[in-house]
Amino acid sequence: MSSLIESLVLESSSKIVLLVLDGLGDLPHPDHGFQTPLEAAKTPNLDSLAPHAAMGRLLPVAPGVTPGSGPGHLGLFGYDPATTPVGRGVLEALGAGIELKPGDVAARANFCTLDAAGIVTDRRAGRISSDVCARLVEKLKQSCGRVEDVEIVLQAGKGHRFVAVLRGPGLTGAVSDADPHVEGRPIPAAHPLAPGGGNIKAARIANAFVVKSRDVLKADAPANAVLMRGLSERPNLAGFRERFKLRAAAIAAYPMYRGVAQLAGMTLFPVGEEPAEAFAAAQREWSSFDFFFIHMKATDMAGEDGNFAAKTAAVEAIDRALPSLLSLRPDAMCVTGDHSTPVLVKGHSWHPVPAMITGARAGADGFLRFHERHARAGSIGVVASKDLMPLLLANAGRLDKFGA
Amino acid sequence: MSSLIESLVLESSSKIVLLVLDGLGDLPHPDHGFQTPLEAAKTPNLDSLAPHAAMGRLLPVAPGVTPGSGPGHLGLFGYDPATTPVGRGVLEALGAGIELKPGDVAARANFCTLDAAGIVTDRRAGRISSDVCARLVEKLKQSCGRVEDVEIVLQAGKGHRFVAVLRGPGLTGAVSDADPHVEGRPIPAAHPLAPGGGNIKAARIANAFVVKSRDVLKADAPANAVLMRGLSERPNLAGFRERFKLRAAAIAAYPMYRGVAQLAGMTLFPVGEEPAEAFAAAQREWSSFDFFFIHMKATDMAGEDGNFAAKTAAVEAIDRALPSLLSLRPDAMCVTGDHSTPVLVKGHSWHPVPAMITGARAGADGFLRFHERHARAGSIGVVASKDLMPLLLANAGRLDKFGA
Repeated sequence: MSSLIESLVLESSSKIVLLVLDGLGDLPHPDHGFQTPLEAAKTPNLDSLAPHAAMGRLLPVAPGVTPGSGPGHLGLFGYDPATTPVGRGVLEALGAGIELKPGDVAARANFCTLDAAGIVTDRRAGRISSDVCARLVEKLKQSCGRVEDVEIVLQAGKGHRFVAVLRGPGLTGAVSDADPHVEGRPIPAAHPLAPGGGNIKAARIANAFVVKSRDVLKADAPANAVLMRGLSERPNLAGFRERFKLRAAAIAAYPMYRGVAQLAGMTLFPVGEEPAEAFAAAQREWSSFDFFFIHMKATDMAGEDGNFAAKTAAVEAIDRALPSLLSLRPDAMCVTGDHSTPVLVKGHSWHPVPAMITGARAGADGFLRFHERHARAGSIGVVASKDLMPLLLANAGRLDKFGA
Repeated sequence: MSSLIESLVLESSSKIVLLVLDGLGDLPHPDHGFQTPLEAAKTPNLDSLAPHAAMGRLLPVAPGVTPGSGPGHLGLFGYDPATTPVGRGVLEALGAGIELKPGDVAARANFCTLDAAGIVTDRRAGRISSDVCARLVEKLKQSCGRVEDVEIVLQAGKGHRFVAVLRGPGLTGAVSDADPHVEGRPIPAAHPLAPGGGNIKAARIANAFVVKSRDVLKADAPANAVLMRGLSERPNLAGFRERFKLRAAAIAAYPMYRGVAQLAGMTLFPVGEEPAEAFAAAQREWSSFDFFFIHMKATDMAGEDGNFAAKTAAVEAIDRALPSLLSLRPDAMCVTGDHSTPVLVKGHSWHPVPAMITGARAGADGFLRFHERHARAGSIGVVASKDLMPLLLANAGRLDKFGA
């Protein structure tokens, strides 16, 4: 289906905005009159769009499947998240703000505690502080920054966690974890999970790094060794320019979302968390790009916290800033989320995400507001997230007729 | 997609109930104020669940496709009925209550009339009575119960029909029918439909059984020969334990449904037709299983009879017994059907089947009752029956997040 869409893509001067309110979808809350935060929020600007917009719901991956942010955004960017391989290590590296290059193999890593016999006694190294982590990562950079012809790019994370990226020639990422996953066992050597010299080399480099780190950290108990898991290579995805003939800009405060956008070939614009700042960036770049992915994080964070009032307030803050974005008069715009993060669930969920598409040819469903209940009855119905891009391209006059 | 789901399945102590009202779905009836039986029924207990439940509709196979009970249940059990091979003979044997063993090849069989030249003159042997059928099947058991090293398991059915199961080493079921399908022709020999010694052997055994029967029955005109069709082997499906980490119990009065449940790896609990008896069985087994498939037949039978009042009464009887099931407080429950059996149609139909899912994270669609009209507007939308299991697993906290 993807190649059918790509074969129909037209050049155009039209502009598309994809405004993602992370974790937007929610469930009726019994403590709040069975409203959702989106229903409870005062959203005069979204309301002004609603009657002339088309509404529907996006299914990020498949019924019942709760997506992480990576798969959630891959869907919105027109990829099938179930079959587009973006490994755990890659997502972690992107989330840490590491700009991955083609051929990079990334891993989630962390400090752990070994006893004298080399048995892992604490997989989290006594939950050392982020400060200690940063200091030890600096130490590793000095002594373990390179193995053979491979640079080991390290970046400290929270607590005992860090990211390790193997950067060098001939590496591929089908490699098992150097992590016993349980305490009471030694660190297993990473091994190739598929044939190929790139996997053999990546496993060898990872193992050498683990061994070398153990030597460097021997006086740093409880953080006297490292574990690595989720090794994966930066995928080589066809990007927005190639697939959709779109010059795409990603405006996002958090590295993770910029990272996934980068995989999709977007140009990155880091901004602060204020909606107005993001919309101002869109205004600045308006003439240079055709497609604007604008990411808002606050809705998801409030959902994760189970904070109904905060999620409602996050929606209201975005709505207040919206006029500056609307003044740009995009030819097609979608307001939606990458997944649901219901306050009741305090985490991501599988529920389809409300979406509203505006544009001269979107249809006018006639609802007075944009929220889950209307989205359920809207003219778009339920479509896979990966089918949003074709809808936006069509609304922007960028898809040719198929067949005569 | 199935393997994606299976890769996300978590262990949990949560309990899931799948309450199947066979043939539940119906159409507005012009003689009953354009209500459906489910709308017309008084269902105070289902009503009590409705506002806090999510509703939607299940598509058993594909738009326009009317499923038999086998495909209908395979879908509910999380298999794709269009691609999961369960042959006619296998379904017939399961429906007759024969416990199929791995390697068994089953066939639908019936008595027929041959003339002196060996031409089939009546494919239904003058529609002999079930009593005559039973007597003749006994006779065949005596004389044709074994061919080579293969046991021929026989069971009489209604009228001229019976089931024949070939049980022995090295049999497979890709074999053509020993049935001309029209009168005025001789009985064709069964032949292998695919390469493989198992098919050759099964065809040989089936043909020997047909020839031997003809000899045994030569004085029993009009039932002086047998026909066999739908030869098929018991499929080896990955079961609930393997796929979903669920210990699954099947509570059903009719052999057919227990049979399909057995193919899915469930433990069988035969019960009578009273809803209270089925729910009592669930109560007894509550601590030993994670998943309870409970099958109610009366709705389908009333639909097949075109009896609106009987279908309404069947729903009401189930609703009256429901409190004992609800008192078990399943973490996730779905009330639905395996297909629609509209009173107007007097048979199975292709119409999507209403479904109601309850659980803490199901969503609360806010409808006051559960029926086709609300199901149409519910938050679940229309999903394939095979996607119900992922939804139930998700609602029961048994599916991990996909990706970071």
